[in-house]
Amino acid sequence: MRFSPVRVSFFRACTYTSTFHSRRLLHTPARNIMAVNKTAHAFDKARLEQMLIGRFFFAPAFEIYGGVAGLYDYGPPGSALQANIIAEWRKHFIVEDHMLELDTTIMTPAPVFETSGHVARFADWMVKDVKTGEVLRADHLVKGVLEARLASDKEARGQAALTQEDDGKDKKKKRRDKLKHAPVQLADEAVAEYERILAQLDNHTGPELGELCRTHKITNPDTGNEVTEPEMFNLMFASSIGPTGKLPGFLRPETAQSHFLNFSRLLKYNNDTVPFASAQIGRSFRNEIAPKAGLLRVREFTMAEIEHFVDPEDKAHHKFVDVRDVELTLLDRETQGEGHTDVKRMTIGEAVDKGVVANETLGYFIVRIYQFLVKIGINPKRLRFRQHMKNEMAHYATDCWDAEIENSTGWTECVGCADRAAYDLTVHMAKTGAPLVVKQALPEPIVTEKEVAEFNKKTAGKEFGKDFATVRQIVENLDEVNLVKFKEELAKGSTTIKSPEGKEFKLTPDHLTVEKKTFKQNVREFTPNVIEPSFGIGRILYCLLEHVYWSREQDVDRGVLSLPPLVAPTKVLIVPLSNKKFDHLVKDVSTKLRKRGIFANVDDSNQSIGRRYARNDELGTPFGVTLDFASLSKGTMTLRERDTTEQLIGTIDEVIDVVTDLVNGAIDWPEAKQRLSLYDGVQAVD
Amino acid sequence: MRFSPVRVSFFRACTYTSTFHSRRLLHTPARNIMAVNKTAHAFDKARLEQMLIGRFFFAPAFEIYGGVAGLYDYGPPGSALQANIIAEWRKHFIVEDHMLELDTTIMTPAPVFETSGHVARFADWMVKDVKTGEVLRADHLVKGVLEARLASDKEARGQAALTQEDDGKDKKKKRRDKLKHAPVQLADEAVAEYERILAQLDNHTGPELGELCRTHKITNPDTGNEVTEPEMFNLMFASSIGPTGKLPGFLRPETAQSHFLNFSRLLKYNNDTVPFASAQIGRSFRNEIAPKAGLLRVREFTMAEIEHFVDPEDKAHHKFVDVRDVELTLLDRETQGEGHTDVKRMTIGEAVDKGVVANETLGYFIVRIYQFLVKIGINPKRLRFRQHMKNEMAHYATDCWDAEIENSTGWTECVGCADRAAYDLTVHMAKTGAPLVVKQALPEPIVTEKEVAEFNKKTAGKEFGKDFATVRQIVENLDEVNLVKFKEELAKGSTTIKSPEGKEFKLTPDHLTVEKKTFKQNVREFTPNVIEPSFGIGRILYCLLEHVYWSREQDVDRGVLSLPPLVAPTKVLIVPLSNKKFDHLVKDVSTKLRKRGIFANVDDSNQSIGRRYARNDELGTPFGVTLDFASLSKGTMTLRERDTTEQLIGTIDEVIDVVTDLVNGAIDWPEAKQRLSLYDGVQAVD
Repeated sequence: MRFSPVRVSFFRACTYTSTFHSRRLLHTPARNIMAVNKTAHAFDKARLEQMLIGRFFFAPAFEIYGGVAGLYDYGPPGSALQANIIAEWRKHFIVEDHMLELDTTIMTPAPVFETSGHVARFADWMVKDVKTGEVLRADHLVKGVLEARLASDKEARGQAALTQEDDGKDKKKKRRDKLKHAPVQLADEAVAEYERILAQLDNHTGPELGELCRTHKITNPDTGNEVTEPEMFNLMFASSIGPTGKLPGFLRPETAQSHFLNFSRLLKYNNDTVPFASAQIGRSFRNEIAPKAGLLRVREFTMAEIEHFVDPEDKAHHKFVDVRDVELTLLDRETQGEGHTDVKRMTIGEAVDKGVVANETLGYFIVRIYQFLVKIGINPKRLRFRQHMKNEMAHYATDCWDAEIENSTGWTECVGCADRAAYDLTVHMAKTGAPLVVKQALPEPIVTEKEVAEFNKKTAGKEFGKDFATVRQIVENLDEVNLVKFKEELAKGSTTIKSPEGKEFKLTPDHLTVEKKTFKQNVREFTPNVIEPSFGIGRILYCLLEHVYWSREQDVDRGVLSLPPLVAPTKVLIVPLSNKKFDHLVKDVSTKLRKRGIFANVDDSNQSIGRRYARNDELGTPFGVTLDFASLSKGTMTLRERDTTEQLIGTIDEVIDVVTDLVNGAIDWPEAKQRLSLYDGVQAVD
Repeated sequence: MRFSPVRVSFFRACTYTSTFHSRRLLHTPARNIMAVNKTAHAFDKARLEQMLIGRFFFAPAFEIYGGVAGLYDYGPPGSALQANIIAEWRKHFIVEDHMLELDTTIMTPAPVFETSGHVARFADWMVKDVKTGEVLRADHLVKGVLEARLASDKEARGQAALTQEDDGKDKKKKRRDKLKHAPVQLADEAVAEYERILAQLDNHTGPELGELCRTHKITNPDTGNEVTEPEMFNLMFASSIGPTGKLPGFLRPETAQSHFLNFSRLLKYNNDTVPFASAQIGRSFRNEIAPKAGLLRVREFTMAEIEHFVDPEDKAHHKFVDVRDVELTLLDRETQGEGHTDVKRMTIGEAVDKGVVANETLGYFIVRIYQFLVKIGINPKRLRFRQHMKNEMAHYATDCWDAEIENSTGWTECVGCADRAAYDLTVHMAKTGAPLVVKQALPEPIVTEKEVAEFNKKTAGKEFGKDFATVRQIVENLDEVNLVKFKEELAKGSTTIKSPEGKEFKLTPDHLTVEKKTFKQNVREFTPNVIEPSFGIGRILYCLLEHVYWSREQDVDRGVLSLPPLVAPTKVLIVPLSNKKFDHLVKDVSTKLRKRGIFANVDDSNQSIGRRYARNDELGTPFGVTLDFASLSKGTMTLRERDTTEQLIGTIDEVIDVVTDLVNGAIDWPEAKQRLSLYDGVQAVD
């Protein structure tokens, strides 16, 4: 159970909010994985992870030192995939919409997060095993134990033992192992009670979680030992800046705060006008209590955040017209409130018009997020936008939508898109006094009238001497109502005022006049609102790998990653038949491709061409070209496509032209087949 | 004064080594800055920094909270410049040489840095002001105070008051202000003593620095107070991983260690063969005691590191032939040892042949570093490679060269290039037992002969019973020489051995035989050596900005940044004459450029075209195109080059073709002038 959110953001989405909503109430079983992945076997997470770690997409960090939970290193294909996703992100968001990119420090002095609320509230409840000292996240413990008991109960009752979350036999087996005894049937009342607790898990405080553990005898499932009372654990990594020990610092848990702190410079850079957006891609940290979900819950991660600053009175977006007909899968607040998970297909124009999505700017970004995710290879059928419930959002937020991607663990929030109103700029301005506001020349000045007192310095100064300042201050401090009263009395000849110390002063029209004056306001000053799309790159990357993973019927043990050429770590593999005779051709093809901006890998190992291709299918390489004896005698080259394994043939230069267009997305495979001949010969000497 | 280095790397270069060498002994005054920068005024650092911060290339981080020394944020042009430098780095190094990219975690469990030596030795000596508690770096304090006294002495003696480091009147003035009294002449012996101390500053331990403070009455120059005894301060930021408080962690001070920890996976990825290189671009941290040098000494920074793993017995490089004729400016160890700073111009081929540079691989990387730096805009005349002195290097290192870039503070190490031998892999293997080695099938097996004892288990077992294991171990522990003696005695009939506890055993040929046997070794196992080029991106970026900064005679107050198009934050500025009539043309040109991969900015503000260009000269935008009335009537567009301010004219499509070639580096400005007409008309209605 986490604290009430201090802010709505990617972090809110993945930190404060338990995934409970999406997993219990909103979960739709991943029925279509088979169809999507056209795989030879049912989706098998263990098999995929084995392949990803084996081919060094990623691996547990510090493995030779025993590893540390929640810390992962990306190897060559993972780094390249991530770099390609980030490059496309930069193009799709920053370049396309002329955003102002930032690259700010991670180490942050404590006062910044005191103001933002993170020091007080960026925390989870934890409990300890009373004997072993093992630390568990309190809400995860309660959830895990009660779900296990319900599962055991179902089994005992002879029902289908798979709970909604179970996605395979392994999990079921593991859960049973944990119970370490035969299925136990519960009383009907207990089942109802457990289901009630699980449905409201998000609403429990720490002490309430402790109470639940006592009442329901919830113990550490690994040891059977009791656990301590829940304590708060702040999720920021703490450190100390400089040698004095007097400047505490935290590693940022999000990049957003530094956008807000730099607001004045950004505004100036944008010629003092809003709207504009700043953007940043960078590392953030979260000291999770007990992370166990692979790349989906880590302690250090790359995120990409946009802070779009906008006039609170005008959240229209000039490019909304370009996206208003894009249809999306939406799971709105109302539907969830009724306990359903039925998504709606709706154009964003309709959603904004009906008030389902709060404003055009939010709507524009939801579409842009959708377009980005689909472009890099996320299956649009396994992508939905879920609106936050009112009690899920911070009190100041207007609206918030998560891009959730379905994967083997359920629906995971991978992008948050929130209208954060003016909260952060307001609190930092209040704390530091820095004017984090926009000053806008008004097209027409606002005219107001106000009573104003004006002293005759000569007469009043003479009359009151050293008390003149006091007198003046008393009058100037009068509010409009009292000043009007004062004026009326003065008009009658004289009036008396009293200092805080009780000294009285008699004032006459000789000393001062009070008159109605006209004021013109030429400048409007306001704190902009912030629309924040916030991306967890690692989560997106992992879900993408699940979406594109499958295997061929004829080669079940080898995986294929159908990554789009745009993000594939390697675009083209050059495969020469043997590794001597073809050296000059390999160099030639390689150089020609490079001149077109395509960097190819060469696999000139001694393995068969088929095996070399299969190895590269696991890395997601979309195209392969083969140099064989016909290349020497006739100057031809074959081109092989990863997903279909179809092969085409043409002259070397023709194939290079076609593969260039394929990699750049100018043509697709059916179009490539129009331009080259189908190659149905068996690969020579394969 | 820093501890003796634990390793040679970029960090060694900028952490362990005081910049003393380069600044006192090796400093060549930056005489040619004027010429290089063709500027209207002498190089003025304050003016440049004001412009860079004003235009938000970078700014002090957390400024509205008072800022923190050594932490900076990059704003839009700085981020774009950095992103472009990194993109080129990735292309130049990783893609070009098929390096294996990594992206690893920053948060590192303590045992890793205990093994690497950082916990014990990655430290500086600090002292505290006894009254205010202000912390100072001990070596910097001694250096600053003694240099100030020498400067004061020189002034008093009526000599040219500028010391070698002084680069302007401001510094002299500041130093004098610090002294807070009139110039003081020193005794001749004191001058000699101070100079002796400064020349050997690197060789002093902490206690010796303390002794120097007492002997020479060195106090905090800001307060005049005495300072405490020097204490060691570890430069790593410390934190704690997870909620138990039992897993201490550090923020990495370099990315290198994670390359070493992942060595086995990398080797497997490279089909179990060396040489190969891994590479990583990422953030690292160093908790500097009192950083004051802007972007040149920061607490958090982006670095790019390559670890090239190579057979220790063969450090040839297959692409050395491509670079051997490249001429470089070298400052070798020998020259420095003689107290000179005379650089040598030499091809890398000659340098390796003569043994000036230790091996081909090191030489190859030195050239690649040179080519990279020059490509992104570093002035080759202000770039040299300085070899580390023997006592500067870690004991295990074979050779180390720093790419030093001259800037307003002297020569600064921006890239380190070291042959680190097998140190890190060896210590991590010793600590963890992970086999961080290469196993290589030998082309011909190595045949060796060895005496081997073989027991007759039956007879010996019967004879010695439960002592058999002891007997066996004693014999097996005999070295070759003793085993031969043992064999000779045994041949005589019997021999007696003694257990550590003093128990004697009599052995006869019945119990065992000792015979010479032949062994064939088919696999060679070795720990690879590592050549490490290590780049400080922020240092390079700052030096680059100094190198390309100048101002025009007719507009002294505006700066110009002559950044190469390759790294310029914005490549093309579109300047329409007024902001309504030309909207469709702006969109048209913008779209056409984008299709060619060039993202242009538009400045449609109300300012004059000249002022808009000038503003973008400060951002380093190399090309501008103007849309004016002739664009409407004749379909022409003018093209303006930043450095010459020359303008060409052609049809819109012609200009787009030319500017595309210019940005992509396919042609230069003189070639562009061949393809378009010179435009000598005054800009209409400017």
